[in-house]
Amino acid sequence: MMKKRRLPLDHYVQGVLAGNRAVLSRAITLIESSLEEDVLLSEKLIEQILPYTGRSLRVGVTGVPGVGKSTFIGSIGNLILDSGRSLAVLAIDPSSQKTHGSILGDKTRMERLARNQRVYIRPSPTGKSLGGVAAKTRETMLLCEAAGFDTVIIETVGVGQSETAVKNMVDFFLLLLITGAGDELQGIKKGIMEMADLLVINKADGDNLGRAVKTQKELKKVLHYFPEPEKDWSPSVMICSAHTLDGLNEIWSLILDYEEKMTSNGFLSNNRKDQQLHWMEEHIEYLLHQRFYSHSGILWELGEARLKVKEGEVAATSMARNLVRRFFNEKE
Amino acid sequence: MMKKRRLPLDHYVQGVLAGNRAVLSRAITLIESSLEEDVLLSEKLIEQILPYTGRSLRVGVTGVPGVGKSTFIGSIGNLILDSGRSLAVLAIDPSSQKTHGSILGDKTRMERLARNQRVYIRPSPTGKSLGGVAAKTRETMLLCEAAGFDTVIIETVGVGQSETAVKNMVDFFLLLLITGAGDELQGIKKGIMEMADLLVINKADGDNLGRAVKTQKELKKVLHYFPEPEKDWSPSVMICSAHTLDGLNEIWSLILDYEEKMTSNGFLSNNRKDQQLHWMEEHIEYLLHQRFYSHSGILWELGEARLKVKEGEVAATSMARNLVRRFFNEKE
Repeated sequence: MMKKRRLPLDHYVQGVLAGNRAVLSRAITLIESSLEEDVLLSEKLIEQILPYTGRSLRVGVTGVPGVGKSTFIGSIGNLILDSGRSLAVLAIDPSSQKTHGSILGDKTRMERLARNQRVYIRPSPTGKSLGGVAAKTRETMLLCEAAGFDTVIIETVGVGQSETAVKNMVDFFLLLLITGAGDELQGIKKGIMEMADLLVINKADGDNLGRAVKTQKELKKVLHYFPEPEKDWSPSVMICSAHTLDGLNEIWSLILDYEEKMTSNGFLSNNRKDQQLHWMEEHIEYLLHQRFYSHSGILWELGEARLKVKEGEVAATSMARNLVRRFFNEKE
Repeated sequence: MMKKRRLPLDHYVQGVLAGNRAVLSRAITLIESSLEEDVLLSEKLIEQILPYTGRSLRVGVTGVPGVGKSTFIGSIGNLILDSGRSLAVLAIDPSSQKTHGSILGDKTRMERLARNQRVYIRPSPTGKSLGGVAAKTRETMLLCEAAGFDTVIIETVGVGQSETAVKNMVDFFLLLLITGAGDELQGIKKGIMEMADLLVINKADGDNLGRAVKTQKELKKVLHYFPEPEKDWSPSVMICSAHTLDGLNEIWSLILDYEEKMTSNGFLSNNRKDQQLHWMEEHIEYLLHQRFYSHSGILWELGEARLKVKEGEVAATSMARNLVRRFFNEKE
């Protein structure tokens, strides 16, 4: 198959703003490209669609493999559509990692959803580093907003620091959990509970219901040990079954309550301003990192440098200073 | 008072290795200097003392103001001395932050300790950024080891990410807590519990003892919800009174058990190799960051750039790319 050629800038802009899904997909592919020409064109594209972004509710969903994220997003997605809204589902997971959290891998779970014209589903961009993948997901989110989607769900399996990346690009962050055979929670990762606006114990059906209720109760106690959130919102613990659909209406209602409350008290808009600044700073760090580690002189020396530092032959900070001087072509 | 002049390299090296406290202090001052000449000299110094480092037990102590860190370190410090060891106490807290966790500010609490010739106490270096302060504290630790101190305690009040910085430079990490009036724990900060090798509830004396015991029990349950640590060590929860000294012997015994176990199973030495690599990488990021944000062209543009990004006039990632290009003197 011949690779499709790049479109003129105007075609991308007009197509995306008209909600043309084929053009949206090609625009996202452009964003995901790392060819210098594509990067420059995609910057212009983002610049032009920027005034039409920011009008969606951005929801993050995280949970380890096995908690039923796809079924959950499939089921709540249908509720979102039933309420008259449209939905874009994106994923953020650096593909080089062991665990693949591909949305499309679980496509069957979302079949009904995917057939709907008001839904757009896009798997995670490929890329080795979270910083690069996160930047592309953010810009994809902006494109989806410009294309008219008023709800965006960003999913992650939580590889590396990807929950933090998702948390930093959404308005509402939902942690999906299940109870294990021994009443123990699956998928509690370091620092994750304090990030969540809502904790949901999924698969609360059949034999599992009792355990889920018990865990819900305990988890509420555990939350008590965490610091007060800075915003006027206390995270709660809900149970649901994405399979029987029990509890899903309550979850969606709670998210809508959040949207209303946080819009009227100004939190959402201030939070987004802060997020934008944070994105810029984070992306600067990422780009500096990328330039450094792809510099030929550094690549040449890094292996031996790492060995020397590991074995204690050279102090870590001294080696860092030497490498940075080399990077900037300075004398030692 | 006239500022003391820099010593010749050999004087620093010989003085530190001989355990001369006056020279050690001057060597640390050299390390803390940001004058280019001092930085170059201190690199040579570190290089020369490096073979004599790594032979101490490195213990991190964190806790919010009010949990009694100084009294605790004072009391356990005396136990450490009684066991025949020597002790250096350092602090890591970026001074630009609101909360000052200065050791010397609480000097009276450590008076007996400070009078002992086998103890060296040094407050946190001044500096705006954690990255810079952390690098200096690490090198200070190396100097103290070369000067013969076989136990190093690094204290932090946990401003910003300073616990992570401390965690990454110690062998054993202790979180100090107290129970509040309403049985609630003071000082649980996001992600902190999972870092600790030991949680200690201090001020478990008098009227407070019952509350402390109760909280200890609950905290053990909470720990149950955290992921298994990667090393062969499960964190426990102990209570003590740094005032009456109750419980301190048990804490110091546990730390010694840890040292023995983790030395014989190889964890300590592998962990230090990983830490050294991590220090190098972290310091590279810090230096790149520092160069970027002190670049005159960037300084000139940053204010407006931040405003534009915050107000949504320019996309965060585009602005980041533009600034980085400017930094490297590239055309747009």
